[in-house]
Amino acid sequence: MEKINKLAIIGGTHGNEFTGIYLVKKFEKFPELITRKNFETKTLLANPQGFELVKRYIDTDLNRCFKVENLENNINLNYEESRAKFINQILGPKGNPKFDFLLDLHSTTANMGLTIILVNHHPFNLKIAAYLSSVEPNVKVYSFFNPGEENSFLNSICKRGFSIEVGPIAQGILQANLFDKTEKLVQISLDYIEHFNEGKLHHISADLVIYKHLKFVDYPKTKNGEIVAMIHPQLQGKDYQKLSPGDPMFLTFENQTIYYQEENPVWPVFINEAAYYEKGIAMCLTTQESITV
Amino acid sequence: MEKINKLAIIGGTHGNEFTGIYLVKKFEKFPELITRKNFETKTLLANPQGFELVKRYIDTDLNRCFKVENLENNINLNYEESRAKFINQILGPKGNPKFDFLLDLHSTTANMGLTIILVNHHPFNLKIAAYLSSVEPNVKVYSFFNPGEENSFLNSICKRGFSIEVGPIAQGILQANLFDKTEKLVQISLDYIEHFNEGKLHHISADLVIYKHLKFVDYPKTKNGEIVAMIHPQLQGKDYQKLSPGDPMFLTFENQTIYYQEENPVWPVFINEAAYYEKGIAMCLTTQESITV
Repeated sequence: MEKINKLAIIGGTHGNEFTGIYLVKKFEKFPELITRKNFETKTLLANPQGFELVKRYIDTDLNRCFKVENLENNINLNYEESRAKFINQILGPKGNPKFDFLLDLHSTTANMGLTIILVNHHPFNLKIAAYLSSVEPNVKVYSFFNPGEENSFLNSICKRGFSIEVGPIAQGILQANLFDKTEKLVQISLDYIEHFNEGKLHHISADLVIYKHLKFVDYPKTKNGEIVAMIHPQLQGKDYQKLSPGDPMFLTFENQTIYYQEENPVWPVFINEAAYYEKGIAMCLTTQESITV
Repeated sequence: MEKINKLAIIGGTHGNEFTGIYLVKKFEKFPELITRKNFETKTLLANPQGFELVKRYIDTDLNRCFKVENLENNINLNYEESRAKFINQILGPKGNPKFDFLLDLHSTTANMGLTIILVNHHPFNLKIAAYLSSVEPNVKVYSFFNPGEENSFLNSICKRGFSIEVGPIAQGILQANLFDKTEKLVQISLDYIEHFNEGKLHHISADLVIYKHLKFVDYPKTKNGEIVAMIHPQLQGKDYQKLSPGDPMFLTFENQTIYYQEENPVWPVFINEAAYYEKGIAMCLTTQESITV
């Protein structure tokens, strides 16, 4: 497998997710923290105007702007569409990128701990994910893509790489413990890549638990689109825990419980993510699979 | 003391604080929940445009717009200044209001549990605060005003009333358990006022612990205003707990601890409130006082 020569650490793809933004600022101030002997590391603050206004985005979600069709469009670009093209010029172009590995730093109001989000199952991604979740057992791996469908995330510019999602944390704040955990995961990732480049990694097959994206679930709503129920208190904060048929899912404002009624168990993630209210997503359902890599 | 004839429950003074907004919506759908036999209750969604865009405010913090000087101004009003005048016309005018009691519902990313925020020490406010913190021992009372200085909060329209602050909760989300706790506190408050109006409250002197606003503390910053430290992990979430000289307060990005170095202990609140980053407030320091009411 080809060595990794250029790696980019991206923060602030969403302007109100401070953990990644201040990590990038820290790495820019202390570049020795991300310097490794056999590859180049670049940092990038992806949505500076969003950060200035402490908003996820100005016009549109930047992390949904990376389909080739969007990147090739030149007409009437809004702020994030322009940024996506700019980022694609620097790191990409998508499909034939100048960078070999992208590490995109995010945070969530959901109780997802440290999550590695994959946008494909490139063998290297699976290997580094397996390694990271073996040395940091709290790390979960979420495959957030539909096979055969083009992905629109920033990470999709490049075959290798992943995003780190850390939570629960409110938008627009820093929490020292989560900041530290995220920084350590970045460090371990860089060390792993350094060793990979040196040919020092002897292949040992490892088991990896992957949470595969199945579908989105919206909040129960009126015909006019008004939310009529909240995440059930028994489900709140239970990301990556098994939800079985008959388990409570929502609680209406009239205190009626709505149960999960599909046939098969699922593992919900992104439960009660603030930025997903407007997308009509109360949670993402996944299936849990164990694979050997 | 005069009876309370008209009471207003206000939600969404900050457009991204969903708990109060959806409580107001619930009360509007089920008015029997807030109907009591001897006073009238009105609900008000204070910042509808803020809610629509899931922003604390459009132009300026609505809950800092209620000084008489601002309310009398008619020139070049921005959205929240106009809303403040409108709200003052409906509920006020400040100093001679049509409403006798205002209950303003807020939420915070700080770990403040259920907090009653007072903008004055009107005897009725102290009595109801003492009652609520006796029946709900987790309820804290925070006097968030400087004596002798005009207060700019919505609550300052009216002598009687308080705001409820609930947390920790991210902006732009609902959490069923906090929603329920806040609703119960509103219910108990309305019941208390109903009994007060009936003359059924026999005065029993009670002890009340009040956290009195002392001062704001900003994040350590560079000369250019860049944050260089986070809330120390040992202080994060420790609202209402004693901070003694020598205790950790901040942790710099270089992992240096900054200690609290004043002479006297304090009780910090609003620790790591997202909306206060732009105000230059990392936390509010209070003194703890016990009074008999």
